[in-house]
Amino acid sequence: MLPDHQTLRIPGPTPIPPSVQKAMAQGMIGHRSSDFKQLLQEISPRLKPIFGTTHEVLLLTNSGTAGLEAAVVNSLQPHDEVLVLVTGAFGERFVKICETYQAHVHRLDVQLGRSVQPEQVSEFLKQYPKVKAVFVTYCETSTAVLNPVAEIATAIHDVSDALVIVDGVSCVGAVPMQMDEWGIDIVVTGSQKAFMLPTGLSFIAISEKAQKIIDQNKQPRFYLDLRKYRDSIKEFSTPFTPAVSLIQGLQQTLNLFEEEGLEQVFKRHVLMRDMTRAACRALNLPLLTSDEDASPTVTAIRPIDFQADELRGILKKEFGITIAGGQQQLQGKIFRLGHMGYCAPSDVLQYISAVEIALKRLKVEIELGQGLKAAQEVYYHAI
Amino acid sequence: MLPDHQTLRIPGPTPIPPSVQKAMAQGMIGHRSSDFKQLLQEISPRLKPIFGTTHEVLLLTNSGTAGLEAAVVNSLQPHDEVLVLVTGAFGERFVKICETYQAHVHRLDVQLGRSVQPEQVSEFLKQYPKVKAVFVTYCETSTAVLNPVAEIATAIHDVSDALVIVDGVSCVGAVPMQMDEWGIDIVVTGSQKAFMLPTGLSFIAISEKAQKIIDQNKQPRFYLDLRKYRDSIKEFSTPFTPAVSLIQGLQQTLNLFEEEGLEQVFKRHVLMRDMTRAACRALNLPLLTSDEDASPTVTAIRPIDFQADELRGILKKEFGITIAGGQQQLQGKIFRLGHMGYCAPSDVLQYISAVEIALKRLKVEIELGQGLKAAQEVYYHAI
Repeated sequence: MLPDHQTLRIPGPTPIPPSVQKAMAQGMIGHRSSDFKQLLQEISPRLKPIFGTTHEVLLLTNSGTAGLEAAVVNSLQPHDEVLVLVTGAFGERFVKICETYQAHVHRLDVQLGRSVQPEQVSEFLKQYPKVKAVFVTYCETSTAVLNPVAEIATAIHDVSDALVIVDGVSCVGAVPMQMDEWGIDIVVTGSQKAFMLPTGLSFIAISEKAQKIIDQNKQPRFYLDLRKYRDSIKEFSTPFTPAVSLIQGLQQTLNLFEEEGLEQVFKRHVLMRDMTRAACRALNLPLLTSDEDASPTVTAIRPIDFQADELRGILKKEFGITIAGGQQQLQGKIFRLGHMGYCAPSDVLQYISAVEIALKRLKVEIELGQGLKAAQEVYYHAI
Repeated sequence: MLPDHQTLRIPGPTPIPPSVQKAMAQGMIGHRSSDFKQLLQEISPRLKPIFGTTHEVLLLTNSGTAGLEAAVVNSLQPHDEVLVLVTGAFGERFVKICETYQAHVHRLDVQLGRSVQPEQVSEFLKQYPKVKAVFVTYCETSTAVLNPVAEIATAIHDVSDALVIVDGVSCVGAVPMQMDEWGIDIVVTGSQKAFMLPTGLSFIAISEKAQKIIDQNKQPRFYLDLRKYRDSIKEFSTPFTPAVSLIQGLQQTLNLFEEEGLEQVFKRHVLMRDMTRAACRALNLPLLTSDEDASPTVTAIRPIDFQADELRGILKKEFGITIAGGQQQLQGKIFRLGHMGYCAPSDVLQYISAVEIALKRLKVEIELGQGLKAAQEVYYHAI
């Protein structure tokens, strides 16, 4: 194998574009300098359309999980009733964080590979009118499901005053998010997914309603205290030393988003999803999710006639392509193809071709080109 | 001025060496891949000598302040009595974090620019035998003081069972730290100081005694739960998506430390401090700290016949050199020269020369070369 020829096709961290890499290497600047202030001032308004908000998007230096924890500790107090919509490993994570902070957690569990139905949520909330916040995962990376957060938010507001808190880690920036319009109160995402950066920044956008609750909340928190970040960003600053190089990279990420156009970014992700799914169908690879539930950023396949992890091993060994396995109950049972961030339709053609060769090696009865042709057709007719 | 010719001489973030920059740009790898596991396995034993410990050094993805908060939430419970040794802004930060988590905080305040005397601490602890932890800042960046943490730890152990918790953010990696030998229980540092990396990683080393307390502590915490990191590092993994690119850079930082030799790294910092201080004395610039208290990583000057911030402005405008001002009560009253991490004696000669020109512009009565010669003499005779 050609050394140093590695391709990352997991649902995050995602590959870093060369121009973003270069932006991050432009040299360190002081985080209290006017240069840094200008950088934040320049970036701030450009982040808002990605979240669909007129409010400032807060930048925290940590991973996405800490962003999710910030949403919890800033909006809840011990013994508050909450509802977590659990569609997989990242719904479970919300449960664990809420339980850590002694919330009274109700769970609505959905079969793995399925999305939450909005009416399930409103029915549930009618029974539990004291619920103060509903937690939902936009893209449940572990199952490749995209939950219909806009419709879920509407269903919640129809019957409840609860905050709507969305884990957008594996998709915001690759799929539409209109939090103001949809009535979503907190959206969290991380840098290592659709934002095409290394891990180390979390992004948190907050509604006015949530901000009021956060301001009054007495739950102890220091580094994750969102009031500090909100106060600092007004002066284009951060309360603690931020990940300066990632923010330098973020400026270039925004250039890339704007050059392509956000709508086009979203279409590209849908196209890559559709190409991948068409190829899987043509190869008789069972998709874990339905077309309606499928995320544009990741595709999960549950093979029946070979071991998922053997396929992953061949892709890594022969082609240097890393794809993801399953998590928790799905470990060893599925494989996941990430098509998020710095990933183009030509990359989909590449990994489908490689998957076919790996399937042949595993004695799966397919013809080479069988799935690829389907992906090519989708691309050919879409553009 | 030559465009794009910027030099960072603040006490962190510090400049990134080109080889570290390159290491961070080698391309993203999956955080659950065998490549990443190998990386952590390779790095782990090499971190220990820098902290002077046989235990694993934990890596958290966040800034140093979150590392300090981790030390607090993992070792304390509400209403525990603690003692914070306050020598400046970062001692104050420990106070605020402890108060946030409802500790009963005793403070021992030391005049700004002075270090803590070990006997002060033991006298204090004799009066307050219930104190469960003592917090001390190794290098108090805001005043350029290096506190004698080894002697302080001994003084504590003479009279108390309290944990000794050290903020080593602005110096560990540039000055000796032998936590096992000195009886220090928790040491925290950040990536953007002596480790010559961008902000985004905090390092936490923990004694067996502290680990036991951490294991039994019921204080709610999730992302900052050090038990999770300790369990993960046993398998050379992390509980949450880590800052992969910084860890790739860290590997090269360790190469640089080892190539130069840790003892030599420490000597270089002492030399840069001594050169800087000799120059300041020759220029009649009043040093904030005594020789005994002076940190090898940063020097603070309190001018009497000109405005500190005017000097900073000239250095930035004419030479692209960024130096630091004062924080809190010292704002506008001091300036601080950072000589930490990727900084060589030749860099000291450069900033001293530039400072002299700036002093001339400010009509301070000096001769050009007056301070520089003193710095050169120190260097000449030291090597």
